[in-house]
Amino acid sequence: MARKRIGLWLIGAKGAVAATAITGWIALKKGLVGPRGLVSEMPPFADLGLVAWKDLVIGGHEIRDASLVESAEAMQATSGMLSTRDLARCRTELLKVERNIRPGTVLNVGPTIEQLAGAGVRRRREKARTVVRRLQDDLKAFIDQHRLDNVVVVNVASTEPPTEADVLPARWSALSKALDRATPCGVPASSLYAIAALDLGLPYVNFTPSLGSAAPAIDELARQRGTVHVGRDGKTGETLLKSVLAPMFAHRNLEVMSWVGHNIFGNMDGQVLDSPANKRSKVASKDQVLSQTLGYQPQTLVSIEYVESLGDWKTAWDHIHFRGFLGTPMTMQFTWQGCDSLLAAPLVLDLVRLTERAHRAGSLGSLDFLASFFKSPYGVETSDFFEQFAMLIKWSSGVATR
Amino acid sequence: MARKRIGLWLIGAKGAVAATAITGWIALKKGLVGPRGLVSEMPPFADLGLVAWKDLVIGGHEIRDASLVESAEAMQATSGMLSTRDLARCRTELLKVERNIRPGTVLNVGPTIEQLAGAGVRRRREKARTVVRRLQDDLKAFIDQHRLDNVVVVNVASTEPPTEADVLPARWSALSKALDRATPCGVPASSLYAIAALDLGLPYVNFTPSLGSAAPAIDELARQRGTVHVGRDGKTGETLLKSVLAPMFAHRNLEVMSWVGHNIFGNMDGQVLDSPANKRSKVASKDQVLSQTLGYQPQTLVSIEYVESLGDWKTAWDHIHFRGFLGTPMTMQFTWQGCDSLLAAPLVLDLVRLTERAHRAGSLGSLDFLASFFKSPYGVETSDFFEQFAMLIKWSSGVATR
Amino acid sequence: MARKRIGLWLIGAKGAVAATAITGWIALKKGLVGPRGLVSEMPPFADLGLVAWKDLVIGGHEIRDASLVESAEAMQATSGMLSTRDLARCRTELLKVERNIRPGTVLNVGPTIEQLAGAGVRRRREKARTVVRRLQDDLKAFIDQHRLDNVVVVNVASTEPPTEADVLPARWSALSKALDRATPCGVPASSLYAIAALDLGLPYVNFTPSLGSAAPAIDELARQRGTVHVGRDGKTGETLLKSVLAPMFAHRNLEVMSWVGHNIFGNMDGQVLDSPANKRSKVASKDQVLSQTLGYQPQTLVSIEYVESLGDWKTAWDHIHFRGFLGTPMTMQFTWQGCDSLLAAPLVLDLVRLTERAHRAGSLGSLDFLASFFKSPYGVETSDFFEQFAMLIKWSSGVATR
Amino acid sequence: MARKRIGLWLIGAKGAVAATAITGWIALKKGLVGPRGLVSEMPPFADLGLVAWKDLVIGGHEIRDASLVESAEAMQATSGMLSTRDLARCRTELLKVERNIRPGTVLNVGPTIEQLAGAGVRRRREKARTVVRRLQDDLKAFIDQHRLDNVVVVNVASTEPPTEADVLPARWSALSKALDRATPCGVPASSLYAIAALDLGLPYVNFTPSLGSAAPAIDELARQRGTVHVGRDGKTGETLLKSVLAPMFAHRNLEVMSWVGHNIFGNMDGQVLDSPANKRSKVASKDQVLSQTLGYQPQTLVSIEYVESLGDWKTAWDHIHFRGFLGTPMTMQFTWQGCDSLLAAPLVLDLVRLTERAHRAGSLGSLDFLASFFKSPYGVETSDFFEQFAMLIKWSSGVATR
Repeated sequence: MARKRIGLWLIGAKGAVAATAITGWIALKKGLVGPRGLVSEMPPFADLGLVAWKDLVIGGHEIRDASLVESAEAMQATSGMLSTRDLARCRTELLKVERNIRPGTVLNVGPTIEQLAGAGVRRRREKARTVVRRLQDDLKAFIDQHRLDNVVVVNVASTEPPTEADVLPARWSALSKALDRATPCGVPASSLYAIAALDLGLPYVNFTPSLGSAAPAIDELARQRGTVHVGRDGKTGETLLKSVLAPMFAHRNLEVMSWVGHNIFGNMDGQVLDSPANKRSKVASKDQVLSQTLGYQPQTLVSIEYVESLGDWKTAWDHIHFRGFLGTPMTMQFTWQGCDSLLAAPLVLDLVRLTERAHRAGSLGSLDFLASFFKSPYGVETSDFFEQFAMLIKWSSGVATR
Repeated sequence: MARKRIGLWLIGAKGAVAATAITGWIALKKGLVGPRGLVSEMPPFADLGLVAWKDLVIGGHEIRDASLVESAEAMQATSGMLSTRDLARCRTELLKVERNIRPGTVLNVGPTIEQLAGAGVRRRREKARTVVRRLQDDLKAFIDQHRLDNVVVVNVASTEPPTEADVLPARWSALSKALDRATPCGVPASSLYAIAALDLGLPYVNFTPSLGSAAPAIDELARQRGTVHVGRDGKTGETLLKSVLAPMFAHRNLEVMSWVGHNIFGNMDGQVLDSPANKRSKVASKDQVLSQTLGYQPQTLVSIEYVESLGDWKTAWDHIHFRGFLGTPMTMQFTWQGCDSLLAAPLVLDLVRLTERAHRAGSLGSLDFLASFFKSPYGVETSDFFEQFAMLIKWSSGVATR
Repeated sequence: MARKRIGLWLIGAKGAVAATAITGWIALKKGLVGPRGLVSEMPPFADLGLVAWKDLVIGGHEIRDASLVESAEAMQATSGMLSTRDLARCRTELLKVERNIRPGTVLNVGPTIEQLAGAGVRRRREKARTVVRRLQDDLKAFIDQHRLDNVVVVNVASTEPPTEADVLPARWSALSKALDRATPCGVPASSLYAIAALDLGLPYVNFTPSLGSAAPAIDELARQRGTVHVGRDGKTGETLLKSVLAPMFAHRNLEVMSWVGHNIFGNMDGQVLDSPANKRSKVASKDQVLSQTLGYQPQTLVSIEYVESLGDWKTAWDHIHFRGFLGTPMTMQFTWQGCDSLLAAPLVLDLVRLTERAHRAGSLGSLDFLASFFKSPYGVETSDFFEQFAMLIKWSSGVATR
Repeated sequence: MARKRIGLWLIGAKGAVAATAITGWIALKKGLVGPRGLVSEMPPFADLGLVAWKDLVIGGHEIRDASLVESAEAMQATSGMLSTRDLARCRTELLKVERNIRPGTVLNVGPTIEQLAGAGVRRRREKARTVVRRLQDDLKAFIDQHRLDNVVVVNVASTEPPTEADVLPARWSALSKALDRATPCGVPASSLYAIAALDLGLPYVNFTPSLGSAAPAIDELARQRGTVHVGRDGKTGETLLKSVLAPMFAHRNLEVMSWVGHNIFGNMDGQVLDSPANKRSKVASKDQVLSQTLGYQPQTLVSIEYVESLGDWKTAWDHIHFRGFLGTPMTMQFTWQGCDSLLAAPLVLDLVRLTERAHRAGSLGSLDFLASFFKSPYGVETSDFFEQFAMLIKWSSGVATR
């Protein structure tokens, strides 16, 4: 089999997660760093024939006037990833990726994100169909220019205000027609990117809480076009811990009376989430893990607050009040101090490899077995991280033996 | 099938864990409390035909001059378990159990525990064989008096100083002879209780870090007598969390650089552990979880300190220093504030039911499937709580379908 | 000098703080507990001639249909204060105090508090003047019945929504006229109680964030009537710590970049504060300490959330992000797990003694030297707890030498 | 008055604290950083005529074969102080300081420190007197070469094992004779440096828990030579917080039942403290703050553990168990994550300025007013940080008005 060349197309390609993923990928290829933090580099996935890092080409859409190199330098200053010297070694390659980045769309992203958009992004009201076509032209040009066998489109853009999935028509035929209407169709940008990708038969990954491909009509499109999609909202910190700890309380028959989680951080994602509408998407995504695992609904509180001085360092404090035998209340508290983009970036790279592999193996529609990567995995019943991880291992065994 | 009457024989029957387990069992029978905190009361175990609470009879050995009622009242004052009124309702039954408690042995328990012993416990040097016979006489009298079908012996006594398993002869035949020697044989009390029970064909559970039945020769005895045993060291707090969190770091390919755990508490267990020799047993038991799960040995520190004011409230602070993609160090910290005896007591009751059931089902020797209850499960390779719990569920399905 | 008999009149006399203060006072008089937690019992105040506990008589206003004995029992169950037996010993005296409790007013308390009011509280719209007269009649009857030399009125009722001080007329003459108007005057209940007390020449203490006597017109009234007042918002937990820690950062020239404080608790105070309007009063009161001490405004976040399972246990997590020499960010976090009413009640008793003593010594108007007891002390510039405490010591020396 | 040129002579001149202080001083002079973190730069000290940064010259003693530039680069990598670029700008000046660094002595430093010494340090057993003379020759050469008006000698070397002060003769005459003996005199290196400095009339600051000038005989020497000294053990983290929080508990009449403090960190200081003998010095220094402030001795635990991955990031967890009115136990916990050298370095620079100023103003012997900088201030009764800080302010006013 000839080696495949695979594209990774990032929506939000100059943001912190994207800049970290791109820089990290370059550092990996150059041997400046090892495979730590990458799930797909662990032994169970060694024989799957995942795409090699050197066979990846990266491009993307971005709405801001930003410099990828500067984004990477800012991340380096905040997070301490790589040394200044090693980052300098990645510069030429970063500039090469930057040349593959095209202006995105702000259609239906809401006012908070819209005001981040640079002059290069057309602010006039376009028809949704026009936008989709333009996005597809960008993807097709990327494929042609780099002679790619496939492109995985990954959304790592800022979180949009919530759009309930049922606002969109249930069937693809109806949704497709809606895109042609001159009047605003309400389909958020994240879904337009998804449609653009899936309609071309390309896999799509929604790493954010935005709607993306989470509507039945879009899943239908994916299946029609013979491709796959997965989401949503990468599970990197507090929610990961919830999905790990809640099963422990459940298996010990301990009653969780209340679970309070306060998250503070100061990157651009935090700035966008500081807008109440955008924050709603995120909080909803973080808050369903418990009832699913415990079988009842404890009192929960989830806050996400923008604290500028923290930059990319997401700090979460969780207070879990529980009781067991004879009813005495007890307490567990944790604090998590993680550098958000450094936790997210390797998962983005993993998802490209695993999604591409599933597509190659003939999967269709949403990919259940990737649930452990997401806060709100499409159509998956369990919130238990270890059950979700077992699904990944099982899929991997299945693919490996084929 | 006629209803079975099952005995629970507690070694350390007036200590905090025993007093809590006994009080809780009485409260359960009286309907004063529900089944929260009891693993064996959860749906997966509903059809196993576990012994009913009302069919249990409790007795035990104790070396201290103490009052069970007073122990229960002290626990109530410290932990707030039950109301004063409900505790008063349990008084008559507590006195009934107290009449089933016999003086234990202090042979080879080490000086710290020895000085806790009351006048009722013979301090003269007996031969090990004599001690075992006396313990067996107590067990046989208990069985006769209450016409019991089986008795599960559970060690919840104070932690002895470490006795390495290889100090004991590897074969039962040799160990049995050593018990007959007039000179001190070095077999710790916890093992004498185990031998007494297993030699009578009774199941034995080691809920402490003491040696108990953890020697090959004693496992051989259990198999010869057609019975079962399991241990050691009930997993109730910090180590439970280690066995839950370490797999998360492993599955995300995050490198744990260091894991520091400081435990403070002030009950009698704490007092005994304040003695360096006794503490060594405990720390060893708590510190092996990580390397087993992670596949490498991070720097670890485990301290257990006696802080009188905390009473039964075991407080643990853990600091986990880890790094992933691109090497930036990150931190998770947790504090656990649990009432130790309230966490341990229901597990003791669960283990009686599950061990008795396995014995009834024809198991032999040490019971792997109960690994999730222990810090250092005999002969089990995995330290991953969820893998261990899956073993329990699998056993349960197997038994249920028989 | 004949011994003085002093009254303590509690607004919110059956709430958690009041029930705790009353029960504690009875226990103190009976010698069931010692003086721990009482500032006024420390050596610097030994020679001030403060009123003896046995010379106090307690009564108050309350709007809810509640039982003082039941409130005390509920507090005992939640907080573990006293033993069940000792509480029973206080019962007769509690019932005696209960007979001194009269229905309060809900005029301008806002809807959240209004719906807590019992049938005994007149819900029809009265003129403010009528309300004040009725409150004064209750106070006068209390004085007469118990032949009291003085009465200190202390507000420990639920927090009202904010009323800006400048909404009220600046002069007492104008405010007094407003009380006579038939149309609603907007003066909140907390201020009506203050007016009722001060107009009778009685000292008034505002232990809550409600307006109370914090308006210039009411201070004028106090001075005219030759009496004293002080407030507001007892400093018992997180804010106490802010006023202790912020000076440390200031004195070491460390820059506090952000200070986030999340408070969770589940008592009635918490329920009332769950209403956004009422919460605003509290958050404003908690948030000014830092800028005053540091000399600049770091980014701050203060949340107060109702978490039912916590009851009276107020848990605060504070995250302080600071930097010093060469600019590297560092972090201090603390969690405070305090039983709110147990921390507040002794301060209420202290304030009665100290306020009465200042009144006796001829002070007039607001009492600066009590600033260390309050989150937002009237007219005091410093938020530094230790500077505030030095003011108390200095006053004490002055009074003692007179 | 002609501008004074003042020397700072660091014992341990290439260690982390020294490298940070030197780099920071260069950055200050170059205007690369502001005065944050420097106490002496705050308004109360503006008019004292403290030595200007540009009038300082730095040199010192060091026992290790190390490079100051590399030490500074290592600190930059660990702590993120300055940017790589700004550090590069300091390089020339760092090399200039490095030329002023002379080999120190390892006489009586104990085996842990001794094995750190480089080839340049004479390991043969010298007479103490010979060592002192050599150290003095270095100081005199430094003064001559840079035409200095004064030199402040500051000990920032690794912590020696404890030498009880009473091991040394009580009088300087006797101690002086002991230095001449051929047999080992037991006077630790830290004291030899102190003697060398004070005997030349130079001020001496002991920033470590080592003995230094803490013996009466050495204080006598200082007074005889008309100079000043101060120590010991810079108060930068956990103990600073103890000295801030303990007064709060005292002033609220809250009983501290237990105070547990666990410290973890991984720099060279930590490595040396990992040796039990050296650790004893430190723990003793950290553990006396509480009883002094509270007036009674709560149960305390202080641990310091070496955790390599933390580098210079000292993390402390403190658990404070207290009770107040009616006896219910409550809890405060804090975690402190500070970069140790960045907290210590500015205090070193402050102490040089303040000590030199006191010397200039005619002070003699140990300097009480600097107590707020130290864990165990020589001869000062109060452990209350705010009382100590008030002493500094008072001294400052006295000097300013002269």
